[in-house]
Amino acid sequence: MRIVDESTDHGVTERTFTRDVDGDTVPGVLWLPAGNDAPRPIVLVGHGGLQHKKVPNIVELAAQLVRNQGYGVIALDAPGHGDRAADAEAIEQTRQGLQRGTARLDADQTKQLFGRIGRHAGEWRAVMDDVQSAGLSDGRFGYWGVSMGTMIGLPLTASEPRITTAVFGLAGLGEGPGGEAFGEAARALTVPVLFLFQWDDNLMSRESGMALFDAMGSKHKTMHVNPGGHVEIPRFERDAAEAHYVRSLGPVPAPVP
Amino acid sequence: MRIVDESTDHGVTERTFTRDVDGDTVPGVLWLPAGNDAPRPIVLVGHGGLQHKKVPNIVELAAQLVRNQGYGVIALDAPGHGDRAADAEAIEQTRQGLQRGTARLDADQTKQLFGRIGRHAGEWRAVMDDVQSAGLSDGRFGYWGVSMGTMIGLPLTASEPRITTAVFGLAGLGEGPGGEAFGEAARALTVPVLFLFQWDDNLMSRESGMALFDAMGSKHKTMHVNPGGHVEIPRFERDAAEAHYVRSLGPVPAPVP
Repeated sequence: MRIVDESTDHGVTERTFTRDVDGDTVPGVLWLPAGNDAPRPIVLVGHGGLQHKKVPNIVELAAQLVRNQGYGVIALDAPGHGDRAADAEAIEQTRQGLQRGTARLDADQTKQLFGRIGRHAGEWRAVMDDVQSAGLSDGRFGYWGVSMGTMIGLPLTASEPRITTAVFGLAGLGEGPGGEAFGEAARALTVPVLFLFQWDDNLMSRESGMALFDAMGSKHKTMHVNPGGHVEIPRFERDAAEAHYVRSLGPVPAPVP
Repeated sequence: MRIVDESTDHGVTERTFTRDVDGDTVPGVLWLPAGNDAPRPIVLVGHGGLQHKKVPNIVELAAQLVRNQGYGVIALDAPGHGDRAADAEAIEQTRQGLQRGTARLDADQTKQLFGRIGRHAGEWRAVMDDVQSAGLSDGRFGYWGVSMGTMIGLPLTASEPRITTAVFGLAGLGEGPGGEAFGEAARALTVPVLFLFQWDDNLMSRESGMALFDAMGSKHKTMHVNPGGHVEIPRFERDAAEAHYVRSLGPVPAPVP
């Protein structure tokens, strides 16, 4: 992990970094309480398709978890996304067009965006190793990611014992990439899960969302369903995610006097 | 409303009362912050079938809402239940037997328990009138009730403009009493609703629960689904209910200096 920039705003320090993994350079951000590098639980945040590590909902979630709970938060650009995109401007235009219903992903774009996301789990593991070596992590990690953030983070969580709690959403079984392996990963989950689903999601059928929730092997799992489309999760679900982490990660240890 | 008893415990005053409505005497309990009779939002709590106004989950919910938010809370015995039961001991034995799967309700018991619950909405309205006349209510009411508490409270909420927010659950469309009229009441709802559903409910199919959530006319509605049976709603959903009331009822007005 190479720190390339650091700034502090209202008690939250934001460190921009890069990490080389298997010949790729992965850009990331680490948020921490200002002036406090003690070991703490860290929440890993995976952005959605066509998004990047610093979209507003991620920056706001990070600030809330750092300020209210003292957790650390890390976001990475997924392969093909953010600073790793061949043409970030074109992706942003496509994202807006998709949201308006006036654009479609062509085969080339789809390959550029999603062709290499399978390697992202290994990148997350490398960054987890780094923050543990640096003494910033106390060994407990949570995960937050919906849509593509679930497609990547659910198999990661199922196979990574350091991640002990997760918020997933906007994903289903039998739709989207992953297929059989994704269903198997869901069944292999054991950690407490909060699963966010939108009742009128234009990308996921209700049945596929219910099937994914049903398949999850976790003893403790909760599904929150709200009206509205794919990108319309209500603001108050951020508080529900925070409450989920407080229940499952617990508090930050008090400093040793 | 005749106050028959009053006691205070850890900042919460509990007033036991009776109210005569249409020839019946309705027993109830009002919880308030100790020593503070100023007008405030009041949450009406409807118990489940075979339960009564002071089952532990109601007493605990009331204490939490009074202590944390300063709301008032009222619970009543439904017709045929609690102090209004012909044989409370027999009902309690049946309830335990039903839970173990070793008892069934016979036709006589079913009639005694549920034959007159249609009149309960009018009883709630009389008690709401009373607390408004007494200056204890600021005109804003919430409702909480699952299972039979939803069967009674959902039509009440749909037709009572003073109730501006509700928590329902453990109920479905097309199952249980109510039929067409219950579906119509669900479609007529306009207030924010938190709907609690159990994924392995032995009394309600998943499909009927989804159908009820889908039918609710409220623009703001959230469904929380958890694994487990009818009476196994996780403890943390009490915090979710509190957060729902804070969002929709708002804070208790500061006292006028």
